[in-house]
Amino acid sequence: MLTLFHAPGTCSLASLITLNELELDHDVHLVNTMAGGTRTPEFLAINPKGRVPALKTERGILTETVAILLYLAQIAPQAGLAPLSDPFALGDLQAFNSYLASTVHVAHAHRPRGSRWADEESSLEDMKRRVPGNMTECFNLIETGMFRGPWVMGDTYTIADPYLYTICTWLAGDGVDIANFPRVHDHFKRMNERPAVKKALSLTA
Amino acid sequence: MLTLFHAPGTCSLASLITLNELELDHDVHLVNTMAGGTRTPEFLAINPKGRVPALKTERGILTETVAILLYLAQIAPQAGLAPLSDPFALGDLQAFNSYLASTVHVAHAHRPRGSRWADEESSLEDMKRRVPGNMTECFNLIETGMFRGPWVMGDTYTIADPYLYTICTWLAGDGVDIANFPRVHDHFKRMNERPAVKKALSLTA
Repeated sequence: MLTLFHAPGTCSLASLITLNELELDHDVHLVNTMAGGTRTPEFLAINPKGRVPALKTERGILTETVAILLYLAQIAPQAGLAPLSDPFALGDLQAFNSYLASTVHVAHAHRPRGSRWADEESSLEDMKRRVPGNMTECFNLIETGMFRGPWVMGDTYTIADPYLYTICTWLAGDGVDIANFPRVHDHFKRMNERPAVKKALSLTA
Repeated sequence: MLTLFHAPGTCSLASLITLNELELDHDVHLVNTMAGGTRTPEFLAINPKGRVPALKTERGILTETVAILLYLAQIAPQAGLAPLSDPFALGDLQAFNSYLASTVHVAHAHRPRGSRWADEESSLEDMKRRVPGNMTECFNLIETGMFRGPWVMGDTYTIADPYLYTICTWLAGDGVDIANFPRVHDHFKRMNERPAVKKALSLTA
């Protein structure tokens, strides 16, 4: 049995959608990040990094969206959510997801979590002012250079799709209108209609 | 033939070390980031994100260290640099590398590249002051909770080792003494002796 430690509104949504897509038997343990749920001794015993997602498996705990999504694709290979036996195509897919994790998620995080990197109130305000521009720059690249259509990597739905969708749910809060990116916007609307997404969004803290 | 776009002193070192370890036939195209080498039209045609590493392959360009290292491990499976057919072990390895990319590299980048996320000089100075503490926090976690020894993932050298080594080369500049982390320090010294590392470091801009 798999247990996903999930906080609604965070990047763990991508892993939850993927569990639903794959119809893998799982529990969800909801974590309330606003109430310090990732800083309790119990949660830090699960993930010393104090972050969601964390996925408890029979072999141990996995963390990091990029890794959990690959793991889920690999334990359910019949679903074809990643081109596991094509090194270039898999590298291309992991490059997209790694860009989301290390650049786009980070660009967003300077709005709600600037205190990770600076102390002064003026610095946090400065960072917040940059977020709409930085997110727009990232999404311009995705819209014009990375997104293939109709799914992120082309004809086939992969583990890149729920991750892009998840980050898109943050754009309005970041002061960016998703309609500025028509292909990404169309993808977002189609993702909203998927049962796996609706089921994932129905879980609230 | 593979061509790595590499800038000495940056995270592309991890990919270069891995090319050397695997003895894969390759060219290295040196990019001078200080002189704007990642912002030229020629380089942006290679990688619109304007970053190294980029790996040119017969099928196209791959970017992002986490993805390139997995690709290299997968095209030379006999070397065993990643547990490709063990979903949990591979997820565990990718989780380590994704943590380096999305948290540790980012913590470091607030010293030399804070202008990605803020404009005011006071904000950049504030960010710089936080770097030693943030890097120390990351490396305390690695030293006590993640690093297994003698290699990152345990008995076997994997694609996590050159990536950890690469980030360790930044610690002195970040104001952090690697000797504070004895197991990581021992790893760093052993990595320095590997021919693949010596060869990679011999390339300078």
